[in-house]
Amino acid sequence: MNLQAQPGSGASQYRILRETDLRDYLAALPAVASRLGGTPASWSISEVGDGNLNLVFIVKGASGSIAVKQALPYVRLVGESWPLPLSRAHFEHMALVHQARLAPKLVPAVLHHDDTLALTAMELLEPHIIMRKGLIEGARYPRFVDDISTFLARTLFFTSDLALSAAEKKQGIADFAGNHALCKITEDLIFTDPYRIAEQNRWTAPYLDATAAAFRDDLDLHVAISRLKLKFMASPEALLHGDLHTGSIMVTETDTQVIDPEFAFYGPMGFDIGAVVGNLLMAYLASAGHERTPGERASFEAWLLETIEDVWTGFSQRFLALWRSEAKGDGYPVSLFAGEAGAARLEAERQAYMARLFQDTVGFAAAKTIRRILGLAHNIDFEWITDEKQRAICEARSLKLARTMMLDTPSFTTIGAVTAAAREVRGWQPDFA
Amino acid sequence: MNLQAQPGSGASQYRILRETDLRDYLAALPAVASRLGGTPASWSISEVGDGNLNLVFIVKGASGSIAVKQALPYVRLVGESWPLPLSRAHFEHMALVHQARLAPKLVPAVLHHDDTLALTAMELLEPHIIMRKGLIEGARYPRFVDDISTFLARTLFFTSDLALSAAEKKQGIADFAGNHALCKITEDLIFTDPYRIAEQNRWTAPYLDATAAAFRDDLDLHVAISRLKLKFMASPEALLHGDLHTGSIMVTETDTQVIDPEFAFYGPMGFDIGAVVGNLLMAYLASAGHERTPGERASFEAWLLETIEDVWTGFSQRFLALWRSEAKGDGYPVSLFAGEAGAARLEAERQAYMARLFQDTVGFAAAKTIRRILGLAHNIDFEWITDEKQRAICEARSLKLARTMMLDTPSFTTIGAVTAAAREVRGWQPDFA
Repeated sequence: MNLQAQPGSGASQYRILRETDLRDYLAALPAVASRLGGTPASWSISEVGDGNLNLVFIVKGASGSIAVKQALPYVRLVGESWPLPLSRAHFEHMALVHQARLAPKLVPAVLHHDDTLALTAMELLEPHIIMRKGLIEGARYPRFVDDISTFLARTLFFTSDLALSAAEKKQGIADFAGNHALCKITEDLIFTDPYRIAEQNRWTAPYLDATAAAFRDDLDLHVAISRLKLKFMASPEALLHGDLHTGSIMVTETDTQVIDPEFAFYGPMGFDIGAVVGNLLMAYLASAGHERTPGERASFEAWLLETIEDVWTGFSQRFLALWRSEAKGDGYPVSLFAGEAGAARLEAERQAYMARLFQDTVGFAAAKTIRRILGLAHNIDFEWITDEKQRAICEARSLKLARTMMLDTPSFTTIGAVTAAAREVRGWQPDFA
Repeated sequence: MNLQAQPGSGASQYRILRETDLRDYLAALPAVASRLGGTPASWSISEVGDGNLNLVFIVKGASGSIAVKQALPYVRLVGESWPLPLSRAHFEHMALVHQARLAPKLVPAVLHHDDTLALTAMELLEPHIIMRKGLIEGARYPRFVDDISTFLARTLFFTSDLALSAAEKKQGIADFAGNHALCKITEDLIFTDPYRIAEQNRWTAPYLDATAAAFRDDLDLHVAISRLKLKFMASPEALLHGDLHTGSIMVTETDTQVIDPEFAFYGPMGFDIGAVVGNLLMAYLASAGHERTPGERASFEAWLLETIEDVWTGFSQRFLALWRSEAKGDGYPVSLFAGEAGAARLEAERQAYMARLFQDTVGFAAAKTIRRILGLAHNIDFEWITDEKQRAICEARSLKLARTMMLDTPSFTTIGAVTAAAREVRGWQPDFA
């Protein structure tokens, strides 16, 4: 089987849809047309994609609304000079189907998928907003902890060796192996470029010039990031979302939806959990940059730290509960842990397993932070801080925390140790401040 | 891509070849027929398979000889009640092709392969014998250390993230993912059954009854073997042979050939290296059972221990040399280790990598030993010791060593520590002795 010949990569039938094409295309889909209601001519269609890679259309009809996502054969952010396989839409759709089964109601419902056009029609999430934007505004989301820890625990557990037979697991790994071009983006932009001279790197100059140079010269850091990169490439523990930052989560006060799993592949669980933790840590350390008066966001920031703690704790409890009740996989066979003593020993090993997973989580959270400050793709938590010096202060604090988390990972044995370190660095003033 | 639909698993065209069928089949292959020479009627054909799984024919003609291996749709050792996919012949052939490219002259040349018949014709290895038989006789093989450490270093390095791009690596993993039925045999027979009641287990009773029971009750051991099993299932570091014991190696004084890679898949490197080390340790501890007079094999045994040390050392040196000169993969990018200080730091990390790999090797060597004494498939190193009590003494020593290697793995930081422990346990007398 040749991974180059994935569905969706046959460009012959593919065309980029304009508004008119899309209207005709959707009109020919009875289920979609009836959901929208009214005549196709009455549908409003607008392209709203603000991500880095794809076209996104919102289509509204008399009785309903949908979102349509179409992959472009290149990186939208950069243009045709950076080609990217259409097959990512195939993998995204496959991931959405798995996630809907494993974590019901936490991902948008798929209404239609077309591998040739690299197109997926989904329910429109309304009145949801991108979580990152809400956090910048200081909004709190009471459902978030339960929902994201459920999403993480269920999608990771049920695609791991603890739940699957080795044959099912190998089939899953093979099914997603063709998504290597998206993995390569992560390998370059997260695990390599921020630590070396790379044309696409940028940072808040001149304030962070010295820090960026220090990161490029820090060989201990280079060993640590290289070990994480190797783990990312060669530890297919579970089916990952692969890009689980707060821009891939849409929220209301009462609902949480995980979107955009086009980076999905079998990788180390800590990469997904670390993405959530790292992005919440950045939201926390960016918060000072969004204050109008000192301390006005103190209680929001306290909520964020509590949320970080509860995400790990909630994930860990749910994952362990699944392991105790749903362990049908080939890993850690229960027949080797019979009787009361066996059960106790297995429970101790479960705790040890979670401790190792927490170490991975800390390392990957740090990697996700550093790439957003010294690499190509930044996030609006920092970018929307218009005072550049203030932005650099927030970023320098995040880099200081991330560096410690990556180099002294074993010293972080609890999530409380992580939030304590974040709280401490929140009060640190960099030299240029 | 459905792994069930691998080439070779379509049973419709498959038929088990008898001598006459095979003669007609080979006669229709010009390259094979001309190699054999003479008329097809003049060829001598004999079925000689003494392995657990397949038919093996030796075909001799006027000018040349070949070996023909055909997979049966079940485990030969057990019969039709234990079905096994024919597709294993497809994976074995693919592995042979890779190994021939990566480690020239160390695997038999393939003359013809037929996925439908699950059949491969190869050069006949003459006057080679199975290394295990030679070791039982006390024979020494001067080429073995250089050849096997070259085979290990080159096949493992060039299929790892140190030599391949992440995309090439994922393609390789997917190519072999369908060989899960063979992996499952290993998962069950090596990593699970010897540690629990299983119908197929056997051991030298009554001498080892108490030890077998103790292994079934030893929860620390069950945790250790479960961690190794998880690593076997979820650490695709490189393309493994997958069954690299001394029965899969054919030797003369001047040549070494690795055969039978039907268990090939992407797994942890330490599994292959540990297979070699573990089987040499068993040859060493079985040697006392083949003495006619005490001490008569002392110098052979000293050679075996030296060989064990040299296999690891030779492998390690070759692997490191390849890493220094041929590191074209996505792992540990050299751009992160520029300049003299960078080169020194990367070299230190290489040593740390080898230290971790050595730990895996020690653990897997122990696992390979225990399964041969308490599980289904035993080896003739021990089986050919006709005095059962003497055999049990040799086996008990091996189990004692393996248990220590599996539970106290970190205490074995050098291969010298392993051979020292083996030497010590050689002098130990079990209670029943």
